[in-house]
Amino acid sequence: MKHIIVTGCAGFIGSSLVDRLLSIGHRVTGVDNLSTGQYRFLGNALTNPNFKFFHLDLLDLAGLKSAFKLGEVVFHFAANADVRFGTDYPGRDLEQNTIATYNVLEAMRVNNIKKIVFSSTGSVYGEAKVIPTPENAGFPIQTSLYGASKAAGEGLIAAYCEGFGFQSWIFRFVSILGERYTHGHVFDFYRQLKLDSNKLTVLGNGRQRKSYLYVQDCIDAILIAMEKSEDKVNIFNLGVDAYCEVVDSVRWICENLCVQPKLEYTGGERGWVGDNPFIYLDTQRIRSLGWRPQHTIQEGIIKTVQFLKANEWVLESRD
Amino acid sequence: MKHIIVTGCAGFIGSSLVDRLLSIGHRVTGVDNLSTGQYRFLGNALTNPNFKFFHLDLLDLAGLKSAFKLGEVVFHFAANADVRFGTDYPGRDLEQNTIATYNVLEAMRVNNIKKIVFSSTGSVYGEAKVIPTPENAGFPIQTSLYGASKAAGEGLIAAYCEGFGFQSWIFRFVSILGERYTHGHVFDFYRQLKLDSNKLTVLGNGRQRKSYLYVQDCIDAILIAMEKSEDKVNIFNLGVDAYCEVVDSVRWICENLCVQPKLEYTGGERGWVGDNPFIYLDTQRIRSLGWRPQHTIQEGIIKTVQFLKANEWVLESRD
Repeated sequence: MKHIIVTGCAGFIGSSLVDRLLSIGHRVTGVDNLSTGQYRFLGNALTNPNFKFFHLDLLDLAGLKSAFKLGEVVFHFAANADVRFGTDYPGRDLEQNTIATYNVLEAMRVNNIKKIVFSSTGSVYGEAKVIPTPENAGFPIQTSLYGASKAAGEGLIAAYCEGFGFQSWIFRFVSILGERYTHGHVFDFYRQLKLDSNKLTVLGNGRQRKSYLYVQDCIDAILIAMEKSEDKVNIFNLGVDAYCEVVDSVRWICENLCVQPKLEYTGGERGWVGDNPFIYLDTQRIRSLGWRPQHTIQEGIIKTVQFLKANEWVLESRD
Repeated sequence: MKHIIVTGCAGFIGSSLVDRLLSIGHRVTGVDNLSTGQYRFLGNALTNPNFKFFHLDLLDLAGLKSAFKLGEVVFHFAANADVRFGTDYPGRDLEQNTIATYNVLEAMRVNNIKKIVFSSTGSVYGEAKVIPTPENAGFPIQTSLYGASKAAGEGLIAAYCEGFGFQSWIFRFVSILGERYTHGHVFDFYRQLKLDSNKLTVLGNGRQRKSYLYVQDCIDAILIAMEKSEDKVNIFNLGVDAYCEVVDSVRWICENLCVQPKLEYTGGERGWVGDNPFIYLDTQRIRSLGWRPQHTIQEGIIKTVQFLKANEWVLESRD
């Protein structure tokens, strides 16, 4: 039994992780500012005496230092995860991802916590030249404020490993899907179809190729990597060995919802400024540890749609 | 004639750049908080009607927005450049390098300035696997807070290029030497020998291999690159095609000062935590534009020693 701190504990992945960690017997302290996280996702955790919740913003360094007391490992999963709106609020990724990560590291340092797990992103590769993209791809040129802020977070963590004897596990995710999913294309499509099932607007030309991973497969991979990799800085891509086009995803969603909307494309190779038209990560490194995803992209998308159907309140939870 | 903004205009490289830009007929607005910059380095510039100075910290975003009015290009050279003391003040690199770069970009955006030149560093490669290290080396793992903060600055700049139509020239320097040099190993050695010419403490085992570039060669390279490269994000290593060991540098300095101190080594491969024992950059890309350095490492070191001899006041200017 370890005492684990989870930032972003009320978020999509964070809350799923909290439930998993509690279920395997760990003590968990969760931190969330509830800006995009949902208190309802902690329903199960809050009934568990091994769970403690701090309603706290990561920009509050003093609060963080206090909340981290007696922790042994930090899973830093809090983030602004909206890649798409980076240019509308250029400071948000810097604050919520880069500066917040620095604060997490400082709160760890004063509490003598030296192990950190970080949710990074395949977006750190920018528009990769090698696809599927391995962890040691060429020095990337960032194409989004989100990717830049996560790459900056990775850099800070690695520097703390070198400078202060920390150890880190950094995971570069493709898009994650599944229960408690509250943003991204499946969410957008579902919300559009709920308002008008005869029409669906698709950003870009629909031919963008993306890879997705089911949240429980993602958590399996994280726990296996932590158990089996012992370097100072351990970096893993997480994804499935496949990708789909946005139009495939549209088809699966519409079939599952039994709707046949007229599709309208905004056009262009990219869904938005900084969108990466082809994300597909090489996952040999994590596979070499014995991990295999148990769900296909299509299964992940269907599970997400089913969650949204059963929890339509989340549609209202985001502006 | 262009209206050029130079941040860090009173610094070692910044002030040398200001003089050069004025000498070739540009109008220059300089910004410096004088924390490590020297007002005396602006002696020449301040007599030029084409120069205007703002005593301003880059964390003052409102001031920056105002100072940048009517600028056409920004040379962002302000930085905390002390690699060595990163772990003593972990927030300094984040603030003075990463957040400051964000503020510069925001001040540019509101003033519709879209061209930025950035002084990055070979430290962004961490401990590179390929030496000499090319610009497209493998995805680096950061080993210092300084390198991490500069890599984060590069990432922000590239994201602004993609998101807001900026154009950038990013230069990854080896250590720069020459007139107005106010920190680094030549400065430290000179100061030690001034206090006691019979003893010199060398950090590490003295076998660290480093590359150095003379400041005027550095400025030549920057101006050539800006003239001849027109991509959205233009990244160049700057250095000479050679390296020396710390003990070589010690010998040249001592010969020039006619002293024969007893050398004491603190020991170990690295001079300090996060020190990179071998920095040597591949400069084929900048050379392909016709640039060649006009000075060897030894000549750069001698010029630096001669500057310090003639300007011992700078020894007192830094704590």
